[in-house]
Amino acid sequence: MNNLLSLLLIFAFALSLNAQVRLEYAIVIHGGAGNISPTFISPEREKEITDKLSEALETGIGILELGGSGMDVVEKVIRILEDSPLFNAGKGAVFNHAGKNEMDASIMDGKTLNAGGVTGVGDIKNPISAARMVMEKSPHVLMMGAGASEFANANGAEIVDSGYFHTEKRWNDLQKQLANDKLEKYGTVGCVVLDKDGNLAAGTSSGGMTNKRWGRIGDVPIIGAGNYANNNSCAVSCTGHGEFFIRYTVAHDISALMQYKGLSVEEAAYEVVHNKLKPAGGSGGVICVDKHGNISMEFNSYGMMRAWANSKGEMGVKVFD
Amino acid sequence: MNNLLSLLLIFAFALSLNAQVRLEYAIVIHGGAGNISPTFISPEREKEITDKLSEALETGIGILELGGSGMDVVEKVIRILEDSPLFNAGKGAVFNHAGKNEMDASIMDGKTLNAGGVTGVGDIKNPISAARMVMEKSPHVLMMGAGASEFANANGAEIVDSGYFHTEKRWNDLQKQLANDKLEKYGTVGCVVLDKDGNLAAGTSSGGMTNKRWGRIGDVPIIGAGNYANNNSCAVSCTGHGEFFIRYTVAHDISALMQYKGLSVEEAAYEVVHNKLKPAGGSGGVICVDKHGNISMEFNSYGMMRAWANSKGEMGVKVFD
Repeated sequence: MNNLLSLLLIFAFALSLNAQVRLEYAIVIHGGAGNISPTFISPEREKEITDKLSEALETGIGILELGGSGMDVVEKVIRILEDSPLFNAGKGAVFNHAGKNEMDASIMDGKTLNAGGVTGVGDIKNPISAARMVMEKSPHVLMMGAGASEFANANGAEIVDSGYFHTEKRWNDLQKQLANDKLEKYGTVGCVVLDKDGNLAAGTSSGGMTNKRWGRIGDVPIIGAGNYANNNSCAVSCTGHGEFFIRYTVAHDISALMQYKGLSVEEAAYEVVHNKLKPAGGSGGVICVDKHGNISMEFNSYGMMRAWANSKGEMGVKVFD
Repeated sequence: MNNLLSLLLIFAFALSLNAQVRLEYAIVIHGGAGNISPTFISPEREKEITDKLSEALETGIGILELGGSGMDVVEKVIRILEDSPLFNAGKGAVFNHAGKNEMDASIMDGKTLNAGGVTGVGDIKNPISAARMVMEKSPHVLMMGAGASEFANANGAEIVDSGYFHTEKRWNDLQKQLANDKLEKYGTVGCVVLDKDGNLAAGTSSGGMTNKRWGRIGDVPIIGAGNYANNNSCAVSCTGHGEFFIRYTVAHDISALMQYKGLSVEEAAYEVVHNKLKPAGGSGGVICVDKHGNISMEFNSYGMMRAWANSKGEMGVKVFD
């Protein structure tokens, strides 16, 4: 009987150990949340989106398998999405009220809490790389406008003519928006990663709001609002109506609910997206990964374009529910 | 004996009730933290600072006594500090690398979690009022540069010539800074309030960093970093090396430690300022007030210019330790 008890105790101990074992790696990507349903997105466009998210995911997995850093994965994955006209970031950035592109991006290293961001830049091909330069090559966290472009250019970022960001779809979106302010107008891309070294990283990039005015800044470049990573808790990237994500300090709030209240990453993301943002009217979603590799992809909008994978071989790509 | 026990229980119950009784109002103001010691500040300048902080405090108390809102107090108090050349905000704003002023401000209403901010503005006399306009007269939270000025001007903010911000002291500070990067270069003003209706409000305003480049944005306009208010926890305004206050999401972290971990406002402020910021090299301080009127004024720098008062008649003004 004593032997049986010992065996049971050992089994229970092994189970409790197992609960703490972390995955080797995990990655989640988003391409924006909002009115993403078959009503608004044709099967052809759905396939283009799925293909591009898969390409970005495979690239991330490749780097992670080789033991690459979460920061490298976040930057490379987001560059792929920025280079595609399908998402509201980089090449596919929306137009502001004046018919110009004003892009935002930020990146954060969960190991060191170092972070970088750019806001209101109009000529940097890959804002996520400029954000990483701000973090790694300056004493600052956030730079704006012409100053940010000057810094990025001096540090080797690719500067492009504003014509590079001109896509027919986004230009037409602006014309529709100018005629009817009720249309969908947000969009963002993001990536969160747990790497083989156990480090978390998060990145977010956006063209902001179609038809935005007055130098409006959303949540994307704001550490703690649209983007956050902390090895003690989780990495978070947000997408949606940015003003609400700033007021609710969404990314840091999810981290704080885990660290201070003991919630799981799923519980914390659910609480903020459904019980705080939604009642306030804040539409959108979040992607998160915790230090064990658990992920969450919560949204209170119609859909969220997303892709995920981990070292157990679980993976998926979804555009609608 | 039973009667005695009953009396004791009633007494204990009354005590526990008393612990929850809130003050009618409380207010804390800061004029910046840093190398604030008799070595750097003459007795004459100390008196000027004390007088101006007292004037701002008396103005705040006057509005609070009459039942005015925390938001009105925050705006009016900060306007007084912005109009003085003694502090790094408004009139006394420091110069950037290009010899220009780029000011930041933000304000938050703890009752609604509404917030507003401006960043990189060079011609608005009172950035704190522009921040409140962004909150109350636009669907946005944060606006930058020329767009923010255009919006503020259209809404009746006082626009001034850049010469208005030229003070001999700040210009000389820039020249010294250009010659020796090690000099003190931060400064901010802020105010946090609990009003008679039980609402919390926070505001922060700054000229940023002397000699700053590349459109650098600090923590002041960033909700959750340099400024935060939430009726469920506290109101916070920060001052110090802004980059660290962004990385540590200082203002929201203090709120989260109270709300999710049950820390008092003193414990939460101490934890963030001394156990998180200080080991990382993040110099500065915070002022906080909780929903009961308890206050905290923690700093890890030499000094912090500050003033405080509450409805019990407690008050004080301090420039050094």
